[in-house]
Amino acid sequence: MNTGIEALDILAEQFARLPGIGRKSAQRLALALLEYTPEDIAAFTAAIGDAKEKIHRCPICENLTDREVCPVCANPARDKSVICVVEDARAVMAFERVRSYNGVYHVLHGLISPMSGITPDTLTLRELLLRLQDDTVKEVIVATGATTEGEATAMYISRLLSPLGIKVTRLAHGIPYGGELEYADEITLSRALEGRRDF
Amino acid sequence: MNTGIEALDILAEQFARLPGIGRKSAQRLALALLEYTPEDIAAFTAAIGDAKEKIHRCPICENLTDREVCPVCANPARDKSVICVVEDARAVMAFERVRSYNGVYHVLHGLISPMSGITPDTLTLRELLLRLQDDTVKEVIVATGATTEGEATAMYISRLLSPLGIKVTRLAHGIPYGGELEYADEITLSRALEGRRDF
Repeated sequence: MNTGIEALDILAEQFARLPGIGRKSAQRLALALLEYTPEDIAAFTAAIGDAKEKIHRCPICENLTDREVCPVCANPARDKSVICVVEDARAVMAFERVRSYNGVYHVLHGLISPMSGITPDTLTLRELLLRLQDDTVKEVIVATGATTEGEATAMYISRLLSPLGIKVTRLAHGIPYGGELEYADEITLSRALEGRRDF
Repeated sequence: MNTGIEALDILAEQFARLPGIGRKSAQRLALALLEYTPEDIAAFTAAIGDAKEKIHRCPICENLTDREVCPVCANPARDKSVICVVEDARAVMAFERVRSYNGVYHVLHGLISPMSGITPDTLTLRELLLRLQDDTVKEVIVATGATTEGEATAMYISRLLSPLGIKVTRLAHGIPYGGELEYADEITLSRALEGRRDF
């Protein structure tokens, strides 16, 4: 990025570091901020500082929270015998929107990806094992995505937990709701077949 | 945006205010910032503050600059008798990349758009008229985009300048380079016909 205005280039580079922001968008965002009033700028930087300062990981499930313990872990109505293991806070939000899950979570903060240098010990697996030490937990649902990294992580966790004698399950794979068969790819279709059930 | 984490929602709303950032992207950006180290957060907020503090409008052409006068206006080799009037700093950057223009600029910081409450007096037209008061300027090229607002603004400026007796021109409209005739829309094609030239 080279506009000849150093402070603008530095700001655009900062935006370009964020996920999904290309060089052109980054420059556009930087220019948009220059149109802000000083009060708007202060509100924006304060929001960044506040979020970083107030939000931390729940000491139980590792999800992001601004309270001592996250609302899910703190809720006595949630079933503490079922833990749903997910990649990140966004996956928790997705499950919470569905409202049909009443167990608790464990947030890995990543997926195993040797290419990106994310090895099992950078995830919160030690913390997960600690949660399984008493006999509270009866089932662990490994709910990572159906991507290469998601599947590799799921496989790793199922092997890690198998000596503990806890039930380890995974999400069903198959045709998504509203999905037309002719547009389903081969892997989805073969998994839908494999996972077929009685009426 | 409602994640149940107030500081996160506030930050996501801040991102959603920026152009081209939807609610989902805004949440993703906010979550990405939470992964930053405190040093990275400091660098980001400093870049915002710095850009806002150091960058201002050139007192001559109204383009953004971090110097007293922008490099184009300060360059004695640039032809001060031709002013290219553009919507914003990005348009100046686009012209400067082409390198075939040797005149100077005037940045309007917007286009007339009654729907968005942008009237002629919110643009830098007063400043443009002041630049035309001595006899230095021989030609004004109105280089706003070929959109409704761009054309309305161009028309307004040409009428505004006509009593001054300065040559007012506009960019050629026609088939873009690489454009196939069959994909050109009717307006583009009729303008290309209108603007036809001898070989």
